[in-house]
Amino acid sequence: MDNQRPLILVSNDDGLMAKGINELIKFLRPLGEVVAMVPDRPRSGAACSLTVTEPIHYELVRKEVGLTVYRCSGTPTDCIKLALHTLLERKPDLVVAGINHGDNSSVNVHYSGTMGVVMEGCLKGIPSIGFSICDHSVDVDFAPAAPYIRSIVQQVLQQGLPRLSCLNVNFPAIPDYKGVRICRQTAGQWEHAWEHFAHRGDTHYYWLTGEFVDADADCEETDHWALNNGYVAVTPVRADVTDYALMDSLKQWFE
Amino acid sequence: MDNQRPLILVSNDDGLMAKGINELIKFLRPLGEVVAMVPDRPRSGAACSLTVTEPIHYELVRKEVGLTVYRCSGTPTDCIKLALHTLLERKPDLVVAGINHGDNSSVNVHYSGTMGVVMEGCLKGIPSIGFSICDHSVDVDFAPAAPYIRSIVQQVLQQGLPRLSCLNVNFPAIPDYKGVRICRQTAGQWEHAWEHFAHRGDTHYYWLTGEFVDADADCEETDHWALNNGYVAVTPVRADVTDYALMDSLKQWFE
Repeated sequence: MDNQRPLILVSNDDGLMAKGINELIKFLRPLGEVVAMVPDRPRSGAACSLTVTEPIHYELVRKEVGLTVYRCSGTPTDCIKLALHTLLERKPDLVVAGINHGDNSSVNVHYSGTMGVVMEGCLKGIPSIGFSICDHSVDVDFAPAAPYIRSIVQQVLQQGLPRLSCLNVNFPAIPDYKGVRICRQTAGQWEHAWEHFAHRGDTHYYWLTGEFVDADADCEETDHWALNNGYVAVTPVRADVTDYALMDSLKQWFE
Repeated sequence: MDNQRPLILVSNDDGLMAKGINELIKFLRPLGEVVAMVPDRPRSGAACSLTVTEPIHYELVRKEVGLTVYRCSGTPTDCIKLALHTLLERKPDLVVAGINHGDNSSVNVHYSGTMGVVMEGCLKGIPSIGFSICDHSVDVDFAPAAPYIRSIVQQVLQQGLPRLSCLNVNFPAIPDYKGVRICRQTAGQWEHAWEHFAHRGDTHYYWLTGEFVDADADCEETDHWALNNGYVAVTPVRADVTDYALMDSLKQWFE
C-alpha cells in the first residue's frame, strides 16, 4: 500500500548536515514517501552544474518506513539525475529542494544549486519546487515555514505544474509571514563581488562576496518586494529560456 | 586611440588549452580589443556555478597590442565576474564565450559553462553571445564558423541586444553550413545518463554519459532541427526566467 503514496525526491545544495534539509524531510514525511539523495558536502552556488571529468559515488545513510536517505559526491543536479537513474523504480510525483539557508530570489536563481535540483526535476517532466529562506544562520528556525511548505506541496501534488515550469519559493528572514505573493524575478545584480587578499606574497587571490543592487526595488510584482515586505515569495520559473519576443527582430538581421 | 575600439571580454568552459577559444580570439581580434579571462582547466558542465567555499586566483598569460590573456582557477562565471571587477577599466561592449567543443543547444543551455559565461555578461547588462560546435574533437576545424561569428558579433556590436537577452549560437558538426536559422530551444532530455562501474569492490560509482532524446525533433522552429539540417542555430535566451504565463493561475491557488 505504501507505493500508493506520493513519491517525493528531495535534495539541496547545503549538504546533508544542514538543518534545512532535515527540517524539509520532517515537514514532507506526512505527505508521502520521501527519498533523499543529498550532496555529501556544501555545494552552494553549484547552479545546474554536472560532474563531467570524474565519476561520482553514492551510499545509503538511513532507511526506515517512508524515508530513505543517500549521500552523493556529485553536484545537486547530479543527485537528481543519479537518483532518477539508479534509485527509483517509478517516476517521482515531486522533486523538492531545500530548505536553502540563503536567499534564492532574483538573479540568484541562476547561481543556486537549490534551483539546480529543481531545474533538473523540471527538465525530467516532474513537478518541482525549491524552498529557500533569506537567512544564512546554521540554526535558523524553519518552523514558521512548515505550513506554507505543506500547503504549496499539496497544491502542486493535486494540480501539477505545466511542462517546463517549476517554482522558486523564498521565505523572508523575519518569520511573521503576511501570506503568499506570486512574483516575478527581480531585476538587479551583484556588485563589489570580490574581496581581495594576499597569500604568500601573491596578491591575486579573491574571495566571492558582494552586495545585491536592486534595479526595481519599488515594484510590487517582484520577489524582492515581497520578501522585503514580509511575504512568502512564490516565483514561477520557466525551463524553456528561449527569448520568443526577440526571435522576430533577429530574423531581420539575417534576411 | 586604441580605447575607442570595442572592448570584447572572452572566456569559455573548455579551458585555455582548447583550440576553440584560441580560434575565437583569432576571429575576434580584427573587431576590437580582446581581453580573455579563461579557466585554467576544463570546466564543461559548470553551468552558472560560482566558487563559494574557497578563494580563486588569476594570473597574466600573454599581453600584446590588442590582446590580453589571463587564466583563472575559478568557474567560467567566476572568470567574467572577476574580470569585470578587477581587470577592466571600462564596461566591455561585448562578452563572448566559446567556441565550445560540443553542442549547447536545447536543454544543454542549462548545464553549459559556455552559457554560464554568457548569462553572467547578460546579467551585468552587457550584450553577450555563446558560440558552440556540435563536435567534441580536440582538433575540429573552426574555419567555416569564422564568417558567421564575425557577422553575428558585428550585428550585436552595432545593434545591441535587449536588456536580459543574450544569444546561444550553435554550429552543426558538418561544416557545409546552409545559413542561419533563428530558433527556439528544443524540448527533450538526456536519458540513460549514467555508466555504472566498480572500483575496489564498491559498485556505486557512476560516470556521466547518456543520449539526448528529442521531444520535438520534427519542428522546424527548434535549434535541433536547424542543426540536424545543416543550419547555424541562433537561439535567443532570456535571463529573466519568470514564467509570466503561470503567474495568474498560481494566484488562484492562494486566494
